[in-house]
Amino acid sequence: MDTNSDLSNKPSVEELVEKYANGEIKAYEIEKHVNPNKAAEIRLKGLEKKYNKRFDNLKVYSILPQNCGPNIENMIGAIQVPLGIAGPVKIKGEYSIGEFHIPLSTTEGTLVASVNRGCSVINKSGGAKVVILKSGQTRSVLFKSKSVIESKKFVDWVKENIDLLKKEAKAEERFIEIDDIETFILGTTVWLRLIANTNDAMGMNMVTIAGKRIGDYISENYSDIEFVSESGNMCIDKKPSALTMIKGRGKKVSAEVMIPNKVIEKYLKTTAEKLIDLNYRKNMLGSAMSGSLGYNAHFANIVAAMFLATGQDMAHTVDGSIGFTTIEKVDDGVLFGVTISSLQVGTVGGGTGVATQKECLDLLGVAGPGEPTGDNSKKLAEIVATAVLAGEISLLGAQAAKHLTRAHLKHNR
Amino acid sequence: MDTNSDLSNKPSVEELVEKYANGEIKAYEIEKHVNPNKAAEIRLKGLEKKYNKRFDNLKVYSILPQNCGPNIENMIGAIQVPLGIAGPVKIKGEYSIGEFHIPLSTTEGTLVASVNRGCSVINKSGGAKVVILKSGQTRSVLFKSKSVIESKKFVDWVKENIDLLKKEAKAEERFIEIDDIETFILGTTVWLRLIANTNDAMGMNMVTIAGKRIGDYISENYSDIEFVSESGNMCIDKKPSALTMIKGRGKKVSAEVMIPNKVIEKYLKTTAEKLIDLNYRKNMLGSAMSGSLGYNAHFANIVAAMFLATGQDMAHTVDGSIGFTTIEKVDDGVLFGVTISSLQVGTVGGGTGVATQKECLDLLGVAGPGEPTGDNSKKLAEIVATAVLAGEISLLGAQAAKHLTRAHLKHNR
Amino acid sequence: MDTNSDLSNKPSVEELVEKYANGEIKAYEIEKHVNPNKAAEIRLKGLEKKYNKRFDNLKVYSILPQNCGPNIENMIGAIQVPLGIAGPVKIKGEYSIGEFHIPLSTTEGTLVASVNRGCSVINKSGGAKVVILKSGQTRSVLFKSKSVIESKKFVDWVKENIDLLKKEAKAEERFIEIDDIETFILGTTVWLRLIANTNDAMGMNMVTIAGKRIGDYISENYSDIEFVSESGNMCIDKKPSALTMIKGRGKKVSAEVMIPNKVIEKYLKTTAEKLIDLNYRKNMLGSAMSGSLGYNAHFANIVAAMFLATGQDMAHTVDGSIGFTTIEKVDDGVLFGVTISSLQVGTVGGGTGVATQKECLDLLGVAGPGEPTGDNSKKLAEIVATAVLAGEISLLGAQAAKHLTRAHLKHNR
Amino acid sequence: MDTNSDLSNKPSVEELVEKYANGEIKAYEIEKHVNPNKAAEIRLKGLEKKYNKRFDNLKVYSILPQNCGPNIENMIGAIQVPLGIAGPVKIKGEYSIGEFHIPLSTTEGTLVASVNRGCSVINKSGGAKVVILKSGQTRSVLFKSKSVIESKKFVDWVKENIDLLKKEAKAEERFIEIDDIETFILGTTVWLRLIANTNDAMGMNMVTIAGKRIGDYISENYSDIEFVSESGNMCIDKKPSALTMIKGRGKKVSAEVMIPNKVIEKYLKTTAEKLIDLNYRKNMLGSAMSGSLGYNAHFANIVAAMFLATGQDMAHTVDGSIGFTTIEKVDDGVLFGVTISSLQVGTVGGGTGVATQKECLDLLGVAGPGEPTGDNSKKLAEIVATAVLAGEISLLGAQAAKHLTRAHLKHNR
Repeated sequence: MDTNSDLSNKPSVEELVEKYANGEIKAYEIEKHVNPNKAAEIRLKGLEKKYNKRFDNLKVYSILPQNCGPNIENMIGAIQVPLGIAGPVKIKGEYSIGEFHIPLSTTEGTLVASVNRGCSVINKSGGAKVVILKSGQTRSVLFKSKSVIESKKFVDWVKENIDLLKKEAKAEERFIEIDDIETFILGTTVWLRLIANTNDAMGMNMVTIAGKRIGDYISENYSDIEFVSESGNMCIDKKPSALTMIKGRGKKVSAEVMIPNKVIEKYLKTTAEKLIDLNYRKNMLGSAMSGSLGYNAHFANIVAAMFLATGQDMAHTVDGSIGFTTIEKVDDGVLFGVTISSLQVGTVGGGTGVATQKECLDLLGVAGPGEPTGDNSKKLAEIVATAVLAGEISLLGAQAAKHLTRAHLKHNR
Repeated sequence: MDTNSDLSNKPSVEELVEKYANGEIKAYEIEKHVNPNKAAEIRLKGLEKKYNKRFDNLKVYSILPQNCGPNIENMIGAIQVPLGIAGPVKIKGEYSIGEFHIPLSTTEGTLVASVNRGCSVINKSGGAKVVILKSGQTRSVLFKSKSVIESKKFVDWVKENIDLLKKEAKAEERFIEIDDIETFILGTTVWLRLIANTNDAMGMNMVTIAGKRIGDYISENYSDIEFVSESGNMCIDKKPSALTMIKGRGKKVSAEVMIPNKVIEKYLKTTAEKLIDLNYRKNMLGSAMSGSLGYNAHFANIVAAMFLATGQDMAHTVDGSIGFTTIEKVDDGVLFGVTISSLQVGTVGGGTGVATQKECLDLLGVAGPGEPTGDNSKKLAEIVATAVLAGEISLLGAQAAKHLTRAHLKHNR
Repeated sequence: MDTNSDLSNKPSVEELVEKYANGEIKAYEIEKHVNPNKAAEIRLKGLEKKYNKRFDNLKVYSILPQNCGPNIENMIGAIQVPLGIAGPVKIKGEYSIGEFHIPLSTTEGTLVASVNRGCSVINKSGGAKVVILKSGQTRSVLFKSKSVIESKKFVDWVKENIDLLKKEAKAEERFIEIDDIETFILGTTVWLRLIANTNDAMGMNMVTIAGKRIGDYISENYSDIEFVSESGNMCIDKKPSALTMIKGRGKKVSAEVMIPNKVIEKYLKTTAEKLIDLNYRKNMLGSAMSGSLGYNAHFANIVAAMFLATGQDMAHTVDGSIGFTTIEKVDDGVLFGVTISSLQVGTVGGGTGVATQKECLDLLGVAGPGEPTGDNSKKLAEIVATAVLAGEISLLGAQAAKHLTRAHLKHNR
Repeated sequence: MDTNSDLSNKPSVEELVEKYANGEIKAYEIEKHVNPNKAAEIRLKGLEKKYNKRFDNLKVYSILPQNCGPNIENMIGAIQVPLGIAGPVKIKGEYSIGEFHIPLSTTEGTLVASVNRGCSVINKSGGAKVVILKSGQTRSVLFKSKSVIESKKFVDWVKENIDLLKKEAKAEERFIEIDDIETFILGTTVWLRLIANTNDAMGMNMVTIAGKRIGDYISENYSDIEFVSESGNMCIDKKPSALTMIKGRGKKVSAEVMIPNKVIEKYLKTTAEKLIDLNYRKNMLGSAMSGSLGYNAHFANIVAAMFLATGQDMAHTVDGSIGFTTIEKVDDGVLFGVTISSLQVGTVGGGTGVATQKECLDLLGVAGPGEPTGDNSKKLAEIVATAVLAGEISLLGAQAAKHLTRAHLKHNR
């Protein structure tokens, strides 16, 4: 073989840029010729050339393409999102105990300031109590039968063989435990809904693999049923649902704080009565009348900002928007609580390994697997829930005191 | 006054770092002493000191704190999220016509590759048709009366004075037009729901201000009613709701493509029948049985990744998850469509001015206000809808062909 | 023709009984030989013969088959349901003013006693205020297009021709007025939702006919659209839905009463605080957490019993179960209110002409058309709403005082 | 004691009528003076006198007030509702095997004829297969704690003591078995949701009593928790809910039939394609878009008519409206199925003992307790589900063939 001709055949960076710009080579083919870091550069330059524009900021990053393999394809650069800090806030959870600074990555002005104010109120009130009410990742495997009679038979068989199926599902996974398999029938459609302990991983991929294994096993061992898909939307992931609200999913977490009247008056400039009335009319009646699953003011804002900072899957903001803010009169003030039906968090896997995100996890003391395993993701869930509590206190306080618009006007136009 | 002593009183950077680390100075007080860029450095160093850790990557950014004022408070750095590119994809919309590269910022492995594959299928099928079915931002202003009888009287008055109220609401805003004010009564609770044209801005802040003005005007001009809040959750923003699904909000957009059988077989490795059956059992029956508002596979994934790339409000991923994927048999293949009930996008304001995000908008040719105004946000909505269509085609294709898990296994563990 | 042989061919009653019992003649063929009253007898005897049983009570009725033609086919007799009386209750409505006895037909022990107690509480509190918030019957006509682009064009055409369509829809109907036609698009599916004033009739049939006319008109005058069905479930009739809760349908009605503390204590044996707390936890939180559209205790019980007594369509109990019970603190007691999203009532047509039902309408002073037309159905709606209010007061009072079970134990086992 | 004066004090019937008409005696006080049969007469006469009207038909009944004690208070007479007969229909269930005549009591013209046509189609197709997917009555007992932390502790205690609680709940009931106790937490609110086997009774009262027992037991044996109510709307009874759709309640039943193309064409005058398309656009897309829980055409009509005929609780029509109609292509026709999420039926207790209703149960061979106990209510559930199937086949067939309106026009105006 003539190495010279070989060398001469190897396209130069300029050639690759040109070819990508012209569409003669596909984005994902560039890595065949150069390393990932160079490939990202080439693609970005190609786009600059094609569109005759400059993308100077997209080039600025410390997260190297060579390390982002598990997270992205066809990388061209990085998006920078401002990161702000709120707190510290005092937490009295089961896994998170002490004071924590809250990293929030967002472009929505006033959000960090608002959470910060909520943290102050929590601190003045002695700290937030937090508890994880449920923990389990779910995936519903989809089957098709020839008749509802067959569906029933199949489900009966599943119930009889549940231990075997659980074992089969986790066969090649060290870090997953199948806690339960629920069954649902709708005519010829059957769902097996796996509920799994995925420890410190958010774990959707793990449980999908487990679902696939179950589907394959059943295909081989049970006739008269067709394995349609690893996911049949009774999971239900990244789509809002009553099922998620009712049963909880991922981590179902509650945080609460008793805010004394004097704190309400001094720091929130309102009263217990006004807070309770606002919550009743807005978060209860308004959400009910709109057919909503989010009986709260803005869980999603805080969930999104913390998820971005800590490398969570941003599409899970959807799940994190489901839940309740409750404000109830107690002797000397109000008991202010949030219940988040589905916090999908992990401290290993997914985006948690990206350098900036990992640093935020590190700031919270939850980077990587916990000891024992699972504790870090639970700790993170408790911290996010507390931040959500802070966000609700601040926004509802502002609305009750009627200076929301002024706050927005000052910070952000 | 002795300027010397004044100078000598001015704390040094090291002192500020120390004080912030010790909690002697609050995060937001630092800008009193130094400029925003320096303040961000100080806060980050303070956290490093306090927690005895290093946050080297959070320091890497080109988006200067001095420019991020409208987007964040207490800035300490930036989160970097990998940016990948899919496409180009051929779009035949009303506002977006031609081929577009799709920027996606995510840490979920396989997502860019998946959208890219969907774009290919769309191109092989002749391009996607897109249409905006509705456009209008909403905010519900909350009132309280003494009796449902009073509620009814108040609403009658509002209906009689609607033109006056519309005019009042937009008084100080050049870029907003109040299209309608809907009314809802539940006993003593009344909502006035503004529907506004906010042109190229996503516009929640604008319409909140309009709501506040209406509330204040009514407080002064109508007795026997209490203005409770600018937002009463019949808007309903960043919370999933049937109201949003039924009426649409922000931009309601549909994208569709007729995929010929030969494209289905060659590129998706499945058949029209399997696609239709999967969509029926998963996205219709599964979503219905789980009480979901998301009759789709993963709208939220693509919405989140494009929102992150283009500077949208990430909490609006919630709204973008609501909608339908439909797959229907036509002569030679399937008509594959997506209908997104609420895309909340803008090309001015919010995060659209952050440097990296602005470059992505620029890549799509939609940075800043359109000509005429409003056209850029509509163009962006059409592009996002097409990307969502691509994402659905690819994921459902993979599930119908049963290689979803394999795809995940290869890319991301 | 030989009349003798004709006569001899005419089957005797005994022969018909025999034939029906044996399945040699179908139920609906019997009227070919005898009059309706005799036909009903024959069918019942046929069943007695076939099953060798006696149905002595089914034979007891004063509502003659010859008069029940519009209401039933294959009549064999009548079901008797006990009718009880509650009240009188004092109503201060717009259409119903004064004292009314409430007829309730039910087999659920304690229901009449419970409503009766609620009426007492209302009377002791000065009477109930009632208001109709909305009135309009709906039907959604279903169309199918070839593309969402075509759907949009069609809807644009509908909007341009709306007056013409409204006129067309009511062409042959004296008693219907089309107030509005709403449009909804989901890909290739389009709904035109008629909202009609049907005066004193419940009116579903009228509006169905109007829908059919619109469908036929469009079929003839607009190409590229297929008229699929007169009803496309965006009406949505006899199925629970958020749409109905949000928009109201038929009659949306509210009733309320201010119950003084002393009445709460003396007659309900509980306190304002307990009532409010129970309503919050049960009717708000419980209903929300279960993904319900019924934020109330038992609207359906009272609606069903009054509908049965007054000849309404019993399947509309479903619609009448949607709505809210609100209990709010006021100076000297509580403001207790109910908002029923969809009361489907009429005083002409349907079962309102059956003799016993007509007598109950007569008792309430609402038999037949009102003067002006429409007033009787509104008056009836106000009375039903008041009865529902009474039912909620009594049941929630009992639960707050914790003697629900005892009440059931005493009356019914 | 002077019996003479006693006798002279005893009010005559005329006096009682007069007093009741004048409001000098309350409805329920009349039984103190006369027997129930006479009391009903007196009340009705009193109303005739007061309103100067005649209620001749309300007087016609064979169900004697003396026997209606468990079903009604303040009885004044009876409502007569026409009873029609459909079928026979061939059923291949687990509990109902053979041919059954379907009694339907309704005032909605065409309903009996429609179900009858559906029965024909089922018979021509070989009969309906039916299966009970779930059976269990539910009641959620409501508690209140001082903190979500306390809620969690309480629920942990309940889980540890679940066997003891189950035993306690059923203490005095022979005919109830507590299968499970589910727990739900929302901040300070806790629900214990009992799932019970109530055999041939519909059983809401039984399970309410069980709930009350559990509440009382906990009040005495667990401090720091307040027992608020026997019912906290997580049951959830007589209100539509996603919870009921997801989990099933009472009896969850499916019925299905494979209808060959030739039967579709000959008897329904339409095609498999049209049926499937109509079901997809109306019952899937239409119901989804309206935020409905009823993915069907008119379950409620058939449920209401059979419930009325067989003495069920009419308010449970609400629960019976929740569920799915599915139509799927099979080789030679369609598989037409219905899944009813919650059929609340019993053959003992409630209205099942009223004479006419009992005769309808007798007609179906399900009057009174089954052998073994529980079998009769299951048999009845299967028959109702088959009737619902017949109703869906007929109405959807008519709509697909577009002669719904004509049918209504002919029978009922």
